[in-house]
Amino acid sequence: MSLDPALIALANDMADAAGTVIRRYFRTPVGVDTKADESPVTIADRETETAMRALIDRRRPQDGVLGEEHGRQRLDAEYLWVIDPIDGTKAFITGMPVFGTLIGLMHRGQPVLGIIDQPILRERWLGIAGQATTMNGQRIVTRPCPSLDKAFLYSTAPDMFKGDDAIAYERVKSKVRQPRFGGDCYAYGLLTMGFADLVIEASLQPYDYCAVIPVVEGAGGTMTDWQGKALTIDSDGRVVAAGDRAAHKAALQALAG
Amino acid sequence: MSLDPALIALANDMADAAGTVIRRYFRTPVGVDTKADESPVTIADRETETAMRALIDRRRPQDGVLGEEHGRQRLDAEYLWVIDPIDGTKAFITGMPVFGTLIGLMHRGQPVLGIIDQPILRERWLGIAGQATTMNGQRIVTRPCPSLDKAFLYSTAPDMFKGDDAIAYERVKSKVRQPRFGGDCYAYGLLTMGFADLVIEASLQPYDYCAVIPVVEGAGGTMTDWQGKALTIDSDGRVVAAGDRAAHKAALQALAG
Repeated sequence: MSLDPALIALANDMADAAGTVIRRYFRTPVGVDTKADESPVTIADRETETAMRALIDRRRPQDGVLGEEHGRQRLDAEYLWVIDPIDGTKAFITGMPVFGTLIGLMHRGQPVLGIIDQPILRERWLGIAGQATTMNGQRIVTRPCPSLDKAFLYSTAPDMFKGDDAIAYERVKSKVRQPRFGGDCYAYGLLTMGFADLVIEASLQPYDYCAVIPVVEGAGGTMTDWQGKALTIDSDGRVVAAGDRAAHKAALQALAG
Repeated sequence: MSLDPALIALANDMADAAGTVIRRYFRTPVGVDTKADESPVTIADRETETAMRALIDRRRPQDGVLGEEHGRQRLDAEYLWVIDPIDGTKAFITGMPVFGTLIGLMHRGQPVLGIIDQPILRERWLGIAGQATTMNGQRIVTRPCPSLDKAFLYSTAPDMFKGDDAIAYERVKSKVRQPRFGGDCYAYGLLTMGFADLVIEASLQPYDYCAVIPVVEGAGGTMTDWQGKALTIDSDGRVVAAGDRAAHKAALQALAG
């Protein structure tokens, strides 16, 4: 089944609307609040999600929405939008232009569309299930990486790995060519273009990863939870993305110990 | 004593020349070698430094040069250029546009000029001793940050803190509002624009920090070693930069324990 072009157009329009709000606030002194989970949030996050939801409400009122800032509605709808207005709020509020807007669409629980949009650098990754991923309209592909000792690994921050997760992460980290922190969703974009080989994260929410799955898979990569299972909105927040299936398998083995 | 405009022009021309080389290699599949200190290096690093040194050799053959890739010459000259063609090679080789070219000029051991240049985003910070720092020609200033619990802290990577340094760093990290990794020289640039409050690093070389000092100080910030002493090319590689003198003092106290 090919995806209704109206859904792709809506996703692109949501990314455009998000970028308009974000560019207005980027590198301005926005107030930063702290949420219950200790993560920061700003008026830019909230206004951006409001702008994205307004488009869904107008064109697809029957669809479900799961967003970082304004909660969940109609989770049992046939189509569910899973959105994060600013993935990488810590980067955003410090003026670092490597955060992104994430727009995922699930159809009966399966990821069918994903956008990673960097509105300052004006880079947009679009992934559609069964199709080749594009970045600003150009087809992109991951690179080969046959083993962990060749791998460039990204993770957003060491603190995302708690308890046993930290031990599992260290096992992978000690085997790769280069570990690095500070990517947020942008790291997955670099992986799809063949400039990084692995992204391993934990403590994620569905809006942090659902949009990323079609982008990674349409570029030739693989993205699962730490057991190698397909990701759903009910996954445990642990993800492994790899450009090469061999690196993905090796990462899963190292995580398992 | 005001700085000879020919020196400022040379520094800008070196940054221009560096950017031309770097833009040619960015997001291309460059081979990555590993140096004796385990850090990565590419042909882009080497060619960029060669281009920068060619300009010094032509216009200021009497000056000293200390560069990351091609060694040191005439360290006892009146003027010493301290340069890093690509600070943040790990960011560069993974396609992340937040590395930078660093150009520092020391006069009899004192930092008198610094450039941080991001050639992909085309952002250039210029600091001159005794003058206001500019970013792309606009004057910039740090923001107030009266205490550590308000501070947004950047460091390039947790692994730069070894042994007791890691313990000292953790003491600061536990007190700040938000710690974050992945900045390289770009983090100092964000600090000078008032989007971050502290940068604390260790295991640095002179070419990683000499250029940054005039940029930070000309924007109203303070930058010293972990004892609060002025940085020289013989410092121990531990630096603290702060936008506000109060945050700098508090960071030094927390580092000392």
